[in-house]
Amino acid sequence: MSVAAVLSIGTELTRGELLNGNARWLGERLVDLGFTVVEHTTVPDDAERIRRTLLRLARDVSVIVCTGGLGPTSDDLTTAVVADALGVALARDAASLAKIEARYRSLGRPLLEMSKKQADFPQGARVLPNDAGTAPGFSVQIEKALAFFMPGVPREMEHIFEAHIAPLLVDPQQGLVVRRSHQIHIRTFGTYESAVADRIRDLDLGGARHRPGITIGYRVTFPEIEVKVLAEAADESAARALAEEVAAEVRQRLADIAFGGKGETYPQYVGQLLRAAQLKVATAESCTGGLVGKLLTDLAGSSEYVLGGVISYANSLKTHLLGVSEELLQQHGAVSEEVARAMAEGALRQTSADLAVGITGIAGPGGGSEHKPVGTVCFALAQRGAETLAFTERFPGTRDFVRTVSAYYALRLFAGVARSMLDVQKATRVQEA
Amino acid sequence: MSVAAVLSIGTELTRGELLNGNARWLGERLVDLGFTVVEHTTVPDDAERIRRTLLRLARDVSVIVCTGGLGPTSDDLTTAVVADALGVALARDAASLAKIEARYRSLGRPLLEMSKKQADFPQGARVLPNDAGTAPGFSVQIEKALAFFMPGVPREMEHIFEAHIAPLLVDPQQGLVVRRSHQIHIRTFGTYESAVADRIRDLDLGGARHRPGITIGYRVTFPEIEVKVLAEAADESAARALAEEVAAEVRQRLADIAFGGKGETYPQYVGQLLRAAQLKVATAESCTGGLVGKLLTDLAGSSEYVLGGVISYANSLKTHLLGVSEELLQQHGAVSEEVARAMAEGALRQTSADLAVGITGIAGPGGGSEHKPVGTVCFALAQRGAETLAFTERFPGTRDFVRTVSAYYALRLFAGVARSMLDVQKATRVQEA
Repeated sequence: MSVAAVLSIGTELTRGELLNGNARWLGERLVDLGFTVVEHTTVPDDAERIRRTLLRLARDVSVIVCTGGLGPTSDDLTTAVVADALGVALARDAASLAKIEARYRSLGRPLLEMSKKQADFPQGARVLPNDAGTAPGFSVQIEKALAFFMPGVPREMEHIFEAHIAPLLVDPQQGLVVRRSHQIHIRTFGTYESAVADRIRDLDLGGARHRPGITIGYRVTFPEIEVKVLAEAADESAARALAEEVAAEVRQRLADIAFGGKGETYPQYVGQLLRAAQLKVATAESCTGGLVGKLLTDLAGSSEYVLGGVISYANSLKTHLLGVSEELLQQHGAVSEEVARAMAEGALRQTSADLAVGITGIAGPGGGSEHKPVGTVCFALAQRGAETLAFTERFPGTRDFVRTVSAYYALRLFAGVARSMLDVQKATRVQEA
Repeated sequence: MSVAAVLSIGTELTRGELLNGNARWLGERLVDLGFTVVEHTTVPDDAERIRRTLLRLARDVSVIVCTGGLGPTSDDLTTAVVADALGVALARDAASLAKIEARYRSLGRPLLEMSKKQADFPQGARVLPNDAGTAPGFSVQIEKALAFFMPGVPREMEHIFEAHIAPLLVDPQQGLVVRRSHQIHIRTFGTYESAVADRIRDLDLGGARHRPGITIGYRVTFPEIEVKVLAEAADESAARALAEEVAAEVRQRLADIAFGGKGETYPQYVGQLLRAAQLKVATAESCTGGLVGKLLTDLAGSSEYVLGGVISYANSLKTHLLGVSEELLQQHGAVSEEVARAMAEGALRQTSADLAVGITGIAGPGGGSEHKPVGTVCFALAQRGAETLAFTERFPGTRDFVRTVSAYYALRLFAGVARSMLDVQKATRVQEA
């Protein structure tokens, strides 16, 4: 019953000029809504191929979600092809035309005759208004399938899907899908995908502690790894209960690296902790060259806890702006725990921050030596009124890998302090109560 | 004749857990090699769907390129399905098995029985060695199509394609494709896609100066826009000549924003200019929070021209580390050309750099006012022995948009100085000669 397919239309996609983010997004949303997605197909702006593919899918699945080919230009063929496949004429929708005219007026652009074609739909289609752009979508029944058509612009597509398609798909009256699954997302940072998988392998399919109906999946958004616990059961509430039970076990196994749920990023998590702990931070970055600062300030409102810092890429800036002594640099080398420590302490001295991190390493591909190979990165965490912590890591990988993982390590240092402060505050409150 | 399709196998793809970067990459490479790509299809790890799709495509196209499902686990079904579709048995390839054994030994991992299945191929298949990973690929003839199978790991897939498939596809003896096209990539930074398109619209399909056989395409890798001039002609050399002629016109129209060719990024271009001009740079970043430093130091060897800088996110760092006076901050506000100027001059004073940029703005979403709305960003360029330049821009968009475009503007300021220095040097050499 609830079997869906995603159809993407556009020569720029088949030619590989664009990543097909729409198909991924729709695949994920359809699965979220309870569908089994059995195919994604992409065809060029070619009427015969669009027609053949639509008719083939219409005999195979119950829901087709299609994007692309609804614009005003001559290579936008979708609407005409659908009308042709159904053997109906095109009809201009007055309400849609009025909205398109208003939109062009508000943008100060002339409405050409060809743009009016965006108000044409196959006779009998249900119009899906587009409040985020010009071309509306529509839906029609083709053989056994309910087929939805949307423009290919991701923002417009997502808007139309959420506003007009998702509610219909899950409407019990329509009977298109019966939700029998529930998925919980657990985001982690701190180790490799295979190491995460190893810790919970016995809970997954084939494992000794596997529960029927449970599938465990992974999604890597480097360097973060998301664990997905999917439960399928007799009904949605049973699925939810099962998912929550297994997710609790997964969270416990991954307690040291799990930080959040669906859509949360590690920098967001760290920012929330710093805000909650009322800590202000500064950075002294060498090999990461500003990446830690960039990640911290990606978030709106980060000025509450980020003061800034120094990018001491050259040794002269380590000396001049952070007060790292030339003797120290000569004695231990720029990539050393001693210099990382002096950098972090310099950043603390130069600012009113509570915490400062120092990072110096060899991101590569050049610059490595036998004792300090590419990927060697020294970290220090200076904290007002406490001992400075310093340590060295060796990250195997490309320049980008070494820099990104290093920057996340720096964030983790901040997170660690903030979390223990919050834990102490909580314990104190509990004691006081 | 030279019609190809891309088939991706994997439930993680149909479920939308992963972006299908392989399909994009293969689409682009096949088009580069001269193929028309008429379909990308993705199916889950489901033997019947894989089989049906393969047989359908084999009746439709001359080349099928397939990825995924070649690993050691129980959901890797591709090889068995192909053998079944061809009605042949699986045969273990001794050479492949020996390589797999050696690989596991070198990684110190035990070779389980299930891993040996990666050395099994449909009888009669040609093995495509995998020097980047464990599972080799293979090719077989299915009905009218030559079908290639590769693992889904992008690095391994790309390696096998380049080493074993591309050479075969373009081998004139095979007669699989006759190249009649040539494409030239022109990368730009500085304006919107529609503004780029407007300047060259008359050269594209339907335009007054359109040349038969020319198609102009765009690819946005925000904030860079790549213009692609595709020429199709009687043979490859005619196509190349036509593409070069039109590309020359395009480059002239876009002279102020074009900076490079295929695969070059704007930060790379700026880095090359700075290296060639032997300029050293420093940064004073507020709203970009380290992003300029990050972009500059993404490149290996950037220590030749990047000294570093100050992330003066808080006003206290502007004052303390860059010498911006508190009076100036109070009088003009942190987001002002005066403060940007003082930041850039401070960075120049604090370092031995030849050039320094100052950036202060309101990235949003909060913090805007009537006079200084979100997106207001002030820039300054300080240059040793020259007047400091300062100006203000208003960027409409999200926080990420404002920050990214601002960082690129800073890079462009550096590029402008480097380019004019190099121009002067060139002119001097010409005069001297």
